[in-house]
Amino acid sequence: MKFINFDYQGKASLGVLLDDDTILDLSRIWPSQPAPASIDALIRLGDAGVAQARTLMADASADASVPLASATVLTPVEAAGRNIFNVGRNYRDHIIEGNLANGRPADAFPIAIEFFTKPRTALAAHGTPILRHAALTQSLDYEVELAIVIGKGGRDITADRAMEHVFGYTILNDVTARDLQRKHGQWFKGKSLDTSCPVGPVVVHASAVDNPNSLELELDVDGELRQRDNTDSMIFDVSEIIVQLSAGMTLLPGDVIATGTPKGVGFAMKPPRCLQAGQTVRARIHGIGELVNTVVD
Amino acid sequence: MKFINFDYQGKASLGVLLDDDTILDLSRIWPSQPAPASIDALIRLGDAGVAQARTLMADASADASVPLASATVLTPVEAAGRNIFNVGRNYRDHIIEGNLANGRPADAFPIAIEFFTKPRTALAAHGTPILRHAALTQSLDYEVELAIVIGKGGRDITADRAMEHVFGYTILNDVTARDLQRKHGQWFKGKSLDTSCPVGPVVVHASAVDNPNSLELELDVDGELRQRDNTDSMIFDVSEIIVQLSAGMTLLPGDVIATGTPKGVGFAMKPPRCLQAGQTVRARIHGIGELVNTVVD
Repeated sequence: MKFINFDYQGKASLGVLLDDDTILDLSRIWPSQPAPASIDALIRLGDAGVAQARTLMADASADASVPLASATVLTPVEAAGRNIFNVGRNYRDHIIEGNLANGRPADAFPIAIEFFTKPRTALAAHGTPILRHAALTQSLDYEVELAIVIGKGGRDITADRAMEHVFGYTILNDVTARDLQRKHGQWFKGKSLDTSCPVGPVVVHASAVDNPNSLELELDVDGELRQRDNTDSMIFDVSEIIVQLSAGMTLLPGDVIATGTPKGVGFAMKPPRCLQAGQTVRARIHGIGELVNTVVD
Repeated sequence: MKFINFDYQGKASLGVLLDDDTILDLSRIWPSQPAPASIDALIRLGDAGVAQARTLMADASADASVPLASATVLTPVEAAGRNIFNVGRNYRDHIIEGNLANGRPADAFPIAIEFFTKPRTALAAHGTPILRHAALTQSLDYEVELAIVIGKGGRDITADRAMEHVFGYTILNDVTARDLQRKHGQWFKGKSLDTSCPVGPVVVHASAVDNPNSLELELDVDGELRQRDNTDSMIFDVSEIIVQLSAGMTLLPGDVIATGTPKGVGFAMKPPRCLQAGQTVRARIHGIGELVNTVVD
């Protein structure tokens, strides 16, 4: 099930994206009131909500659907709420390219996960612009990432139970101002400019993902392939990320955790090739979909 | 005006802490409905809300107040919402002590503000415990800080307008697990354990603070003075912090920004002296008050 937040004729709703590129409008056909109007509202309903969605999908008639092309895709996570959690350097080859670009030993791997955050004011929906912020940064960069959406909260989650806390998965482009990332020491500032967190277009329910640690992901800029790897290159896998983040820190339903990016970022190219106004960035993860955003001045 | 969120006989309310250690219950005597029940609700009312509070204070009779001793102090900021923003190394002597403790040149000062965040799941009210998290950290430390509460949001705020965006000021203890801070590379994980963000007890309205860049602050552990400095030692002052944080990133009403800590933290002592269960930490800022929390296993 590919859950989607969408706007159709001025109404924000929760839907399921179907294989024929129509959206089943769950909010409209939900049998009880109040109907969930967003993925976060569905998460708050717990397992019963997902079961209800599954039943509605099985029984739905075609007239309960709207064409994807006539809807506006909204961010699959709420604009209000605590920050997005992010995993720093997690893909082997990306760590090496970063180490070499920064004059460090190639094999200087992190011993524990480098967590940082992005504020939700940075969220951008599929199809909406990424601001170039030309007055602030000379090196805006892209980073395709698998993002985990938490369904069940908890603290000190153990590895054998970690996957039970996952609601689903989405695509996140961890847009980064490299010069600000460096200048400000900690990464937060360079990761947090408005529109620097495109997410979506859908959240795929965990039941539809066989193995999140074996998904192909790639990113292109104006059709030129820049990043291509597989989540099996992650040093810290999905359950390990949940274990380390939840150690002593309570996770909440609806939390989003981006899991790091593979090699191929613009700043590590020779010469560096960062994002320019007019360029279109397409981030894809096999089995989830494609997240498209265009850079604007 | 010292605004306070408090619980009295099971009801959460907004009040003003008066000089005689009673709380004027603004929620109860607010003339229009719905009455604001928290400082964040008051902030959302804008200047009119503060003006109304001021009028109520001037006219209030004694029977509208409750003794502070019979109320429970709640966190002055909401538990839900985006992360607390934090300024890293900002006090000259603290930077030097940190540099020396970490084997760096003493005068390696930051060229721009090192922003990071703490999640609101870490909030702790005045008088509530700080968890020792003994299974996770061997070096839990304290950091007294002046915290800014934003009243009016905005992006790309200029220095000459920055102070107009401040609602008020409070005290924040940026409790930090030093070993996790180091091990995880980025500071987020070591700064984000549950209860590692005591805040309060009050938010003093900006109109009652002559100059936030000239406030004495100090912290003691079981009565032993550990930190004492003045906010005039900050490298980046309040308006500069707002300028740098809001550059390209929208600030929202209710945002909290902690401004960094002075010298005297436990990990830089020789030998290091970190927090132990049973110890009581008192953080004071002149003109704001005292934030007291006890460490528990």
